[in-house]
Amino acid sequence: MPSQSVNPRTGQPFGPVLEDTTIEELDAIVMRAVDASIAWANYPSDERARVLDAVAAALHADAEALAQIADEETGLGLPRLVGEVARTAFQLRMFADALRAGTHLGTVIDPPVAGDPPAGHPELRQMLLPLGPVAVYGASNFPFAFSVLGGDTASALAAGCTVVVKAHPSHPQTCERVAQIARAAIVQAGAPDGTFTIVRGFEAGVALVEHPGIKAGAFTGSTAGGRALFDLAVRRPEPIPFYGELGSVNPVVVTSEAAKRADLAQAYVASLCMGAGQFCTNPGLIFVPRESGLSNSIADLIATQPPGVLLNANVESNFGRHLADLVDIAGVRVIPSSSLADGGDGFTVSPAVLVTDVATALRDKRLLTTEVFGPVGVVVEYDGFAEVLTLIDALEGCLVSTIHAESDEEMVPALVSALMRVSGRIVWNGWPTGVAVTGAQHHGGPYPTATSALHTSVGTTAMRRFQRPVAFQSMPLHLLPPALQ
Amino acid sequence: MPSQSVNPRTGQPFGPVLEDTTIEELDAIVMRAVDASIAWANYPSDERARVLDAVAAALHADAEALAQIADEETGLGLPRLVGEVARTAFQLRMFADALRAGTHLGTVIDPPVAGDPPAGHPELRQMLLPLGPVAVYGASNFPFAFSVLGGDTASALAAGCTVVVKAHPSHPQTCERVAQIARAAIVQAGAPDGTFTIVRGFEAGVALVEHPGIKAGAFTGSTAGGRALFDLAVRRPEPIPFYGELGSVNPVVVTSEAAKRADLAQAYVASLCMGAGQFCTNPGLIFVPRESGLSNSIADLIATQPPGVLLNANVESNFGRHLADLVDIAGVRVIPSSSLADGGDGFTVSPAVLVTDVATALRDKRLLTTEVFGPVGVVVEYDGFAEVLTLIDALEGCLVSTIHAESDEEMVPALVSALMRVSGRIVWNGWPTGVAVTGAQHHGGPYPTATSALHTSVGTTAMRRFQRPVAFQSMPLHLLPPALQ
Repeated sequence: MPSQSVNPRTGQPFGPVLEDTTIEELDAIVMRAVDASIAWANYPSDERARVLDAVAAALHADAEALAQIADEETGLGLPRLVGEVARTAFQLRMFADALRAGTHLGTVIDPPVAGDPPAGHPELRQMLLPLGPVAVYGASNFPFAFSVLGGDTASALAAGCTVVVKAHPSHPQTCERVAQIARAAIVQAGAPDGTFTIVRGFEAGVALVEHPGIKAGAFTGSTAGGRALFDLAVRRPEPIPFYGELGSVNPVVVTSEAAKRADLAQAYVASLCMGAGQFCTNPGLIFVPRESGLSNSIADLIATQPPGVLLNANVESNFGRHLADLVDIAGVRVIPSSSLADGGDGFTVSPAVLVTDVATALRDKRLLTTEVFGPVGVVVEYDGFAEVLTLIDALEGCLVSTIHAESDEEMVPALVSALMRVSGRIVWNGWPTGVAVTGAQHHGGPYPTATSALHTSVGTTAMRRFQRPVAFQSMPLHLLPPALQ
Repeated sequence: MPSQSVNPRTGQPFGPVLEDTTIEELDAIVMRAVDASIAWANYPSDERARVLDAVAAALHADAEALAQIADEETGLGLPRLVGEVARTAFQLRMFADALRAGTHLGTVIDPPVAGDPPAGHPELRQMLLPLGPVAVYGASNFPFAFSVLGGDTASALAAGCTVVVKAHPSHPQTCERVAQIARAAIVQAGAPDGTFTIVRGFEAGVALVEHPGIKAGAFTGSTAGGRALFDLAVRRPEPIPFYGELGSVNPVVVTSEAAKRADLAQAYVASLCMGAGQFCTNPGLIFVPRESGLSNSIADLIATQPPGVLLNANVESNFGRHLADLVDIAGVRVIPSSSLADGGDGFTVSPAVLVTDVATALRDKRLLTTEVFGPVGVVVEYDGFAEVLTLIDALEGCLVSTIHAESDEEMVPALVSALMRVSGRIVWNGWPTGVAVTGAQHHGGPYPTATSALHTSVGTTAMRRFQRPVAFQSMPLHLLPPALQ
């Protein structure tokens, strides 16, 4: 099915109609990625760093024009999108810096030890090699930072893997333009033509993950879409790792002491509604002390929030369906009730909160596990700390959980322990939206928030997803890869 | 189906009949492993090290008696089995040492950086946590080092995961006795009762990997068995990582110069026939220069080798079937032809080589991809280096490849490059059997030799298979896990 841009503020299509990549074209593209993969893997790390820097510079130079196209396709607004281009370039440069530092090769050298085994052994030297061509499936909600040149592509290229990106149909022109910039910069920097390519269309996306030339996949998006691709990846004759960063319901726990803070309700609503609630780290679930009255403050504020524009028709229909599912549960109050009406032009919807109690949430766990992707939060009023622990036990894996508390409150250590078991990241007295691009970051978590809890999709260690070890036993120095000599 | 020991030298059953674990019992056992997992995860690293050392000491103290039982069940011989107990204890102590060193926690600390994103960010501290209860499926060919207390169990316990082992039906009494020793030592050292348990039976093994309380699986054994368990693991509602170390055809390349070495044929045959060829690193495929006459030397020697005893009836029947498949290929000579007759008492078989040429091997790639688990090698005679590269291109992933060459031969760098693409380890002028237990070791490789090319099952980094990252953002010091404070 050919793709065309749609303005989410109006629902109207615009711009060129882009044809899908045919299966024959896809095969040729993957074979080019396979051919290029040996040369790219053999690029010295500092040469790969130079190419990533060149791509970052080219992207940065075109930031304003790119943000303009992306805004028309996503409705996310120019300031946010200009910032997102900067973040994307920053991320490419972070991987370039990591390549120059050299620790990504994981070199380990064991000199020989004389004597019988198990203590005695020959010399062994180990390092990490690139896995081979990687398929990347970008997200609709970050048209730069988690799309064509996002963290998955940047980390795979940095690891020495060639990349084939499946363009997101929700921002096709942005994808095309970013891909052109990247391809031009990569080829100009001297890298092989097959190092980076883009394909379009659902069928090409399926054929991509099933292609024997592809050695790993990475995805950011819905649980349903990610699980379907994961299933294809692991059912291949040669199964491949598939790193899906899927949906997430990110809990916030507010203690009695923190509930007294004057700005808490306002800060929560701001985080919940930022970007029309379309962050994978959106704090869509909050546990508040019933006696604090915090749920009333949140409810009062949510009713004053302007409508938000969702990314596309699919996001809007899922939003309506998931919201309707939760609203139908007995014991749930919707505030404001007017939020259930059609929000207006295009894919516009109204922010809302669903207020409920612990018994209701435990009786119908959809309240704790359904991600309503958009500006909607579930507020659970609790009585006492034991109820909070019971709620946490009922949660599924999440990207990030948040604690608002005073550090000397008695229950806090147990709260941290309980949240560690379900979360990839824990935020203290802050908000989960906004994922810093830095070495200690972890963006991932236990299933269903990721198909592999072992790895992160943000931060320098994201490269490790696309590397495999090789050990050399008693090899003469001059025959070893340079990093091991 | 109840299990009973069988003496492979006679084919006769002996000893107690052991009933399978029922599904109800299995569920109770996994739930105990789940209950214990929080306490075990919270054990400080040096306390876990103390428990592993205690288990190693208890195992070592019983080495002679254990080897005696295992010899009756496996026919592997007392000297080898006493050495294997020592290796298994050494491995437990290696992980204990790694725990005391502390680097396994992968701590990363990023101080806060002032300013706007993307450069500015809050404080982030990351470390690795245990995944949760692990299911371990041991191998028949290493009744100690890759069985109940083998590398998978040792690395999972070290990582802070509780373990449920599925006993191997080929050495049931050895499994029982090792498990008793381990359980007694673990409980005496103060660890919770559910930290380590063993179950028996095929159905219990299937239910184990499907149990929602299990968070990862590890397996050493056949490609068919490992893939079946992998498929169960990834098709669960919550898919889990499954580390199968499966079959492997490990190529040896001999150059013209190396073929002149007087002892080469003898050393090859010794490695091929060691332990009746029942090593996953067995060099079952060798490429030799036709003009060197090396294949004749190997053929002459193989005919003088004594018969070997295979581990069990299943291994014997697979050996016969795979050998028959390859023998039937036109263009393959079997030496000695008498090796095809029944080898004698019990599961005894005769060593053999199948000699063929490059054209035949490329026409019927089963010659390059079939693991005949036992003392049988495929010898491919080549003319010129181009043929060697073509053969390597036709290989599947392997644990280890071996080069016999002079270091200044012209083709050697290209040979190393080609073998790196298919191998987990490359041995220079040595033999692949014998896997050193050390930090730089890599035991794994591209599929089908492992279900995850990213990880090793031998060496300290084997722990990383059972860990997941968690990041703490702006958390007060006293609320962080001790390693991050």
